[in-house]
Amino acid sequence: MTIAKKLQLLRNEMVKNGIDMYLVPSIDAHNSEYVPECWQRRPWISGFDGSAGEVLITLDAAYLWTDGRYFLQAEQQLDSSVFTLMKQQGFVAETEVWLANNSSGKKLGIDPRLVGIGRTNKLQEIMDGCAGKLVVLADNLIDNCKQQLNDVQAIPNNQAYAQPINYTGLSTADKLAWLRTELANNHVNWFAFNVLDEIAWLFNVRGADIEYNPLVISYALIGEQQAIWFVDLTKVSGELKQELASSGVELLDYNQFGDYVAELNSSIGLDDKTASFWMLQQAQVSNQVKLLRSPIVYKKAVKNAVEQDGTRFAHQKDAAAMVNFIYWLERNWQTGVDELIASDKLADFRAQQDNLRGLSFATISGYAANGAIIHYRSTPTTNKVIKNDSLYLLDSGGQYLEGTTDTTRTFHLGEPSAELRRHYTLVLKGHLALSRAKFPHGTCGENLDVLARTPLWNELLNYRHGTGHGVGSFLCVHEGPQRISQAFSGVALVPGMIVSNEPGFYFDGNYGIRIENLCLVTKVDSDSEYGPFYQFEDLTLIPYCKRLIDVSLLSDEDRQQLIKYYERIKTLVLPRVTPEIQSWLLNELDLF
Amino acid sequence: MTIAKKLQLLRNEMVKNGIDMYLVPSIDAHNSEYVPECWQRRPWISGFDGSAGEVLITLDAAYLWTDGRYFLQAEQQLDSSVFTLMKQQGFVAETEVWLANNSSGKKLGIDPRLVGIGRTNKLQEIMDGCAGKLVVLADNLIDNCKQQLNDVQAIPNNQAYAQPINYTGLSTADKLAWLRTELANNHVNWFAFNVLDEIAWLFNVRGADIEYNPLVISYALIGEQQAIWFVDLTKVSGELKQELASSGVELLDYNQFGDYVAELNSSIGLDDKTASFWMLQQAQVSNQVKLLRSPIVYKKAVKNAVEQDGTRFAHQKDAAAMVNFIYWLERNWQTGVDELIASDKLADFRAQQDNLRGLSFATISGYAANGAIIHYRSTPTTNKVIKNDSLYLLDSGGQYLEGTTDTTRTFHLGEPSAELRRHYTLVLKGHLALSRAKFPHGTCGENLDVLARTPLWNELLNYRHGTGHGVGSFLCVHEGPQRISQAFSGVALVPGMIVSNEPGFYFDGNYGIRIENLCLVTKVDSDSEYGPFYQFEDLTLIPYCKRLIDVSLLSDEDRQQLIKYYERIKTLVLPRVTPEIQSWLLNELDLF
Repeated sequence: MTIAKKLQLLRNEMVKNGIDMYLVPSIDAHNSEYVPECWQRRPWISGFDGSAGEVLITLDAAYLWTDGRYFLQAEQQLDSSVFTLMKQQGFVAETEVWLANNSSGKKLGIDPRLVGIGRTNKLQEIMDGCAGKLVVLADNLIDNCKQQLNDVQAIPNNQAYAQPINYTGLSTADKLAWLRTELANNHVNWFAFNVLDEIAWLFNVRGADIEYNPLVISYALIGEQQAIWFVDLTKVSGELKQELASSGVELLDYNQFGDYVAELNSSIGLDDKTASFWMLQQAQVSNQVKLLRSPIVYKKAVKNAVEQDGTRFAHQKDAAAMVNFIYWLERNWQTGVDELIASDKLADFRAQQDNLRGLSFATISGYAANGAIIHYRSTPTTNKVIKNDSLYLLDSGGQYLEGTTDTTRTFHLGEPSAELRRHYTLVLKGHLALSRAKFPHGTCGENLDVLARTPLWNELLNYRHGTGHGVGSFLCVHEGPQRISQAFSGVALVPGMIVSNEPGFYFDGNYGIRIENLCLVTKVDSDSEYGPFYQFEDLTLIPYCKRLIDVSLLSDEDRQQLIKYYERIKTLVLPRVTPEIQSWLLNELDLF
Repeated sequence: MTIAKKLQLLRNEMVKNGIDMYLVPSIDAHNSEYVPECWQRRPWISGFDGSAGEVLITLDAAYLWTDGRYFLQAEQQLDSSVFTLMKQQGFVAETEVWLANNSSGKKLGIDPRLVGIGRTNKLQEIMDGCAGKLVVLADNLIDNCKQQLNDVQAIPNNQAYAQPINYTGLSTADKLAWLRTELANNHVNWFAFNVLDEIAWLFNVRGADIEYNPLVISYALIGEQQAIWFVDLTKVSGELKQELASSGVELLDYNQFGDYVAELNSSIGLDDKTASFWMLQQAQVSNQVKLLRSPIVYKKAVKNAVEQDGTRFAHQKDAAAMVNFIYWLERNWQTGVDELIASDKLADFRAQQDNLRGLSFATISGYAANGAIIHYRSTPTTNKVIKNDSLYLLDSGGQYLEGTTDTTRTFHLGEPSAELRRHYTLVLKGHLALSRAKFPHGTCGENLDVLARTPLWNELLNYRHGTGHGVGSFLCVHEGPQRISQAFSGVALVPGMIVSNEPGFYFDGNYGIRIENLCLVTKVDSDSEYGPFYQFEDLTLIPYCKRLIDVSLLSDEDRQQLIKYYERIKTLVLPRVTPEIQSWLLNELDLF
């Protein structure tokens, strides 16, 4: 089936529904970073399968907006006879700008499950402003087309399972009790949730519906007395059902959520950033609706003591897997190891560790110029053999029952040039400076980001991505609300939060460097007159690339910090590898 | 006249006007940092004359809200039998919180000239929310009381004068032409301005109506054809009037502004942060009103080449005055120099420089424990003799026709302890680290603030103020919109902006340390693939205190930077002092 033919079918649907334009966003009804195949509508209609992009179809044209990371890929994947690539610059909502200028008198259709509340209101305003109309449709028109073509994929229905309290540290009953105090604080009788990691956290359940994320497709509705999980009931074993029941959680089918909310006749809170407009429609049928930030977002970001110990342990195992891999690579690259072989081998080493439940994202395994592509994913056509004349960038992580890992190391297998060592060491110096920061209560990521960039900025170099993201506890590898970047977050870093520390440097067409540890925010023990001070504890315990460190560029502070860090690796990781690898590792850890 | 008696008079006025509560803010109708005496209503009714504070009078009580800097002073100045001190914590609008909880069914009166548009709307909401009422009065009730007591001060009516183009770099005609493009961009026919430094900048006029600020009390109204300056006409000489007329500026009396705006029958832009509610009332009589940020704020902050050269020159002269003073202090402190004598002497040295038009703020001259009071102002009762057993903090600046200066140096006249030197050097290291920052386009003050704090934070120390503020060009010593602090500004630092770099450390009851230079943001010459990079050029050219620098704590970068900075002082300041002082200065500049 060609894209042109699919577009024809869609336009028939559009005419049938009386609309002139149809919006096809990337996200699904759960605002997921990874969308299951059954809901990957934008790739289906456009042929473009990058992670970011949005399509607008009119009766005689089709547009794809995507950002600079994907211009090349989109040019290759789009059929330019029917699709126009719209190159997105910066953070402007360019679809909206285009609509404001090109929709005079037109009717724009949307699936309200795929558009947030704020955005729907904005689209309404735009269409009203140009004598057009926003039409909120009941059906998804892409799904209608797929049905006509018998090209329908099932919604994933993998088994859900309980995440026990020795990993979560807080029972479902306790989480519900806390959430009910939040109901009271916010003067609502119910909260509804559509974001899958919030629901998994709340009910202490995990699943396998979403690639790289141990989540279960579902909704949750929590009231003062009731707690209801709307989920495909075939995913829930009798045992899990009983366990949930003992915490006061009832089960209803996934498809009952909308009607149930519509009939509550009460007051309800919805997340102002992630709830879909469809949820608002349902809620408004009989309820007073209050838009607010879901209280789970912040609570989930601040890991409790059990989660903190869990992630520490997961990182020790992950470090052993990485050390095994690095040793293997050093010994075997001459046999013609390529990017795909290497990432498979690393996955094998991870799988040897206890309690691994998969990878936490698609491994970025990029040699030489491929390493300079920030969101690179190796394919048979791009795959390069790893040699000893450039850099190899490896960004990967695992999902362990005890916690989620994410680390990047950059390697050189031969004798790196002075320039390579210089660039690597500048990135390392920024990484170390951020890692050793002590900062008072109230400090946000945007206040600390510069520490990781200063060594590069001094040379008029930079990297075009943030420095750090939050990480879940056997949940999503990207989670908010905290982050470390120049942009405003307004979220103070507090003990229990996990953030990545991942400065980089990318020489387009040549090589990429990134060094990434996950860090836990902890309290500095000593008292201060200026309130509590916090610091980062490196969770990741993997040596940096000895060959690439130019020790002459390191300050005394840098050296002391490396020595301390490597002592921790000796204590915590050395015992986890074989004697042969131990002696190699000890040599790697001997820097000065 | 006792405060109790004044309150009685005011309450009579309140009853006459049918209100139960009356708000007395600190600011005047021009949102000024320094309020002329005739409009200092809050000090008049409360007896408290600190720079920050707000009074609310009810029929049987009186409250003063002020912040931690002024708790002690307020306790001393308030008559506690009639006034209650409300201690303000953090940045909550505590008057509003109190009103929301204590105004049920009450009528609150305000003078709309003294309350901004946003705040008035908020007060309206609060009073409506508690079945009360906001009453916007025509008269100021404090002024009514003062009239009854024949205690009325005249509005300052000092002569205005032209600031010539060799200092401003841009003619009034060119500024008006630019502003008219802004009118078009913002789809309004007129802009009205009440903030005095914006008006002085726009018309290239200066005056002497406000202490420390070369401003003229006035309003401005700019349309597509007309430009009107509403000012006491006796302040404007025939010559100045003619010069303004040649740029197309008409003059009308200060008191005609309201009526004129009320009769425009057009569309008008008002600043959403600084315009008074009274301006909105007038404008709404016949106009469509658009609230927006005054375009002058940003334009004024980015100094043109002539202003940049002017401020460089002003700082060279100012440095000579400071060097003369430091030399004098070193030679004379044993004679019993106290804080007041020292600040007078410094003012004398400044007055010896060409084109000085006064000080840019009230000098902070604090010895020992007085130096730990961040906004200290020496009085005959607090005045300390400067000796050689503690630190002396001196924060001062001048208003030169070429530019505004502001610098802080901290001195020790004997043999400082290791701890004093350590604290001083930590502050210096932060000051130097910020000063040498290179940063890409888009970087805001909140992204850089940490550089000045890291050496202190590493020791769990801090300072409870921002790191830097904007500075005007022979205008206000504090001007926006840029600043350097942990708090969000959203304003990128760009070439032409001036900011202070002033970290500190305060040991309550013992001593204070602050080191402050003004810096100009400039472009780094070399090209970068990451867009333009910027850096700070130190405008201030005054040596740090040699005795207080613990060179063992300095990094190589710190040393190189000090050497370079001191070379600039040798080139630019040495020629401006006498041979005797030159040889002393050369010794001070010889650190390593």
